[in-house]
Amino acid sequence: SRGTAPRSAPSPTRAAPHRAATPPRAAVGRSGTRSCDPCAVAAPPSGGLPMPRFPFRRPDGLESTAPQPRPAEPQTAPVGTADRPTRDDLLSRVSEYAPTIRPTMTVAEAVAALRHHPGDAAYGEVYVTSEPSAGAAPVLLGAVSYRALAMSDQHRLIAGVMRPDVVTVGEDVDPEEAARLFRRHRLAALPVTRDGELRGVLTAADVTDILQQEATEDAALQGGTQPLDVPYLKASPLLLWRRRVVWMLLLFAAEMYTGTVLKAFEDELETVIALAFFVPLLIGTGGNAGTQITTTLIRAMATNEVRLRDVFKVVRKETATGLLIGLTIAAAALVRAFTQGVGGEVALTVAVAAGAIVVWSSVVASVLPLLLRRLRIDPAVVSGPMITTLVDGTGLIIYFEIARVFVTAIG
Amino acid sequence: SRGTAPRSAPSPTRAAPHRAATPPRAAVGRSGTRSCDPCAVAAPPSGGLPMPRFPFRRPDGLESTAPQPRPAEPQTAPVGTADRPTRDDLLSRVSEYAPTIRPTMTVAEAVAALRHHPGDAAYGEVYVTSEPSAGAAPVLLGAVSYRALAMSDQHRLIAGVMRPDVVTVGEDVDPEEAARLFRRHRLAALPVTRDGELRGVLTAADVTDILQQEATEDAALQGGTQPLDVPYLKASPLLLWRRRVVWMLLLFAAEMYTGTVLKAFEDELETVIALAFFVPLLIGTGGNAGTQITTTLIRAMATNEVRLRDVFKVVRKETATGLLIGLTIAAAALVRAFTQGVGGEVALTVAVAAGAIVVWSSVVASVLPLLLRRLRIDPAVVSGPMITTLVDGTGLIIYFEIARVFVTAIG
Repeated sequence: SRGTAPRSAPSPTRAAPHRAATPPRAAVGRSGTRSCDPCAVAAPPSGGLPMPRFPFRRPDGLESTAPQPRPAEPQTAPVGTADRPTRDDLLSRVSEYAPTIRPTMTVAEAVAALRHHPGDAAYGEVYVTSEPSAGAAPVLLGAVSYRALAMSDQHRLIAGVMRPDVVTVGEDVDPEEAARLFRRHRLAALPVTRDGELRGVLTAADVTDILQQEATEDAALQGGTQPLDVPYLKASPLLLWRRRVVWMLLLFAAEMYTGTVLKAFEDELETVIALAFFVPLLIGTGGNAGTQITTTLIRAMATNEVRLRDVFKVVRKETATGLLIGLTIAAAALVRAFTQGVGGEVALTVAVAAGAIVVWSSVVASVLPLLLRRLRIDPAVVSGPMITTLVDGTGLIIYFEIARVFVTAIG
Repeated sequence: SRGTAPRSAPSPTRAAPHRAATPPRAAVGRSGTRSCDPCAVAAPPSGGLPMPRFPFRRPDGLESTAPQPRPAEPQTAPVGTADRPTRDDLLSRVSEYAPTIRPTMTVAEAVAALRHHPGDAAYGEVYVTSEPSAGAAPVLLGAVSYRALAMSDQHRLIAGVMRPDVVTVGEDVDPEEAARLFRRHRLAALPVTRDGELRGVLTAADVTDILQQEATEDAALQGGTQPLDVPYLKASPLLLWRRRVVWMLLLFAAEMYTGTVLKAFEDELETVIALAFFVPLLIGTGGNAGTQITTTLIRAMATNEVRLRDVFKVVRKETATGLLIGLTIAAAALVRAFTQGVGGEVALTVAVAAGAIVVWSSVVASVLPLLLRRLRIDPAVVSGPMITTLVDGTGLIIYFEIARVFVTAIG
């Protein structure tokens, strides 16, 4: 789920290699990349810091070649919370073990330092930072792939081997944007910075997790239910009831106005009872037209394909599409009404109403998700149920007003 | 979208290091990992092979340190197709540039060979394969991280440095399963094998793409529309019409039976017109209860949380939840019917019908996705619109049958 909180613009930036030092701050930051002299490689976080949620398993072969000191680490991912991250987990996933080296080291010195602190080979590269001065966190200067370390002359300086143009993201990174950067630059890891300081490292696997979780949450919201936060099979009926009943009651309350609408047209209904036969068909069709649009739009907004500024483009496109679908459905409705044997007037009413309801539903469904985003409400809440509820009663008004025009018995 | 084609079980396997040679086959396989003597590193595919969709940009710093021969490669990802992969793209994404080395090389020889063929440092590691004999593709024996290459003694044999227990997947890998492996093992790349032979390498970024695409397709299906395959803003109204109109007409045709149901209860409706007031509310509530369940279930099935064998567990859980929600909604309906001023008999009918419809809808919605999966139809087609359409008419029957019991005027 996104958008309930204000969503800042994605902030991919390039590390500014020689930027001015930032104001003093605590030596151990949130990401725990603390300098560990004399080897100048970041140490595991001290006891007071939150531990990373994920085990840092090293996929390389070093363990077997030479036993080395390394922090105790679980070998398998814990079931439960780790499998189902919440959105806030993005930064808790940022690695706290990111090993860093200094530009003044030689390749041989860097390799020796990294051997001492195993780090996480899954990143594919090591980050080069400034020497942290008293009270200031290290500034990201560049990156060196393990590959480059393997292939460079042992006596070269890291400053000459490192790649200064590292793709980084801010701490407020949008997972979708991070995924895009991973793809575009074929990254194995993405450093997270604040004011040029290295705060941690995000892996593609972490981003994949978060995207999966967001898609699941969006699906829940669009189904008119609160996200579960636990694996489905572990959820008790009581928990499912709690997650669903609020939306059910809200939608029930919202749908109650359809009764009022029908009561207002009681005379019309009593005069021509045949009008009642088409009520479920017409409101169902209106809801379907709207649901088609909101699901497509919400997903396009989730993947940043459609943004707020596209609102007019979207409404124009959906209105045109609504007219096309409305004409098609009107034709189908005309055929259906005749085969139902309700007479020409009611048949005409049903056909015209079907087309009009589809167009009306299209306009509502195309405006609503963008309007909610504007109001900083998660557009994923424009569930199928919600759009159906919204257009049910208004569709009935359209239907009976058209009936008043075409059915002489009512007139 | 998944499930329309039979979905084979995910097949993560461990490479069997010294397995018997497979029957002879073409030297250049689909993945193009062809031996390129004398350096024994896979060459870029020859002209006749499909080129990879993605540019292989090297994020390491080698280019600047020493100019090396490398295949011509675009520097930015092409817009369009590459951004919107179809499901079949999984294997077309498998890298064709996977550099491989032999276990009989020393670390220094391996580094020299890899320097000659830059490969893709984003993988973080290099794969060790057997010497391809005439007509047989190379068998995967293990992997060495660039990190291990950087830190190992130059004279050691690769056989002693490599990690033999490589996590691999078969060519029929399910993207969800691949994502799970990336996460569990903190991989940067996942070799794809067939019968032990290395067919290519999948990156986490590739898997992320595919999962994103599948979530978008599932969202479309659950909204009752065909997936777009083009970016939303690029889709013309005519294309949108084509993608949506089939479902709209199918749902319209399916919903037509509600008219027949209402006609069958014409006498009841004419006797107690107040019954008509609650038709939209009741069928709306039934549809909502069903949509809540199908969206949750379909997503749980997409992420392999719920499988076919869980059908009884799911139905039991949803029936229990349906009873809880049904009771809640029945209470709300009773209140609503009284405030609508329709008399005790109709109010009782509405309350009992609301509860019964919720339970009925819960059972249908919990069985249907699993039934469709069993029939090898993508369960994502059980859209909100579809479940609404299914339970609308049956809900009406429940409503009027209950009315016959409670409303004496009808009796």
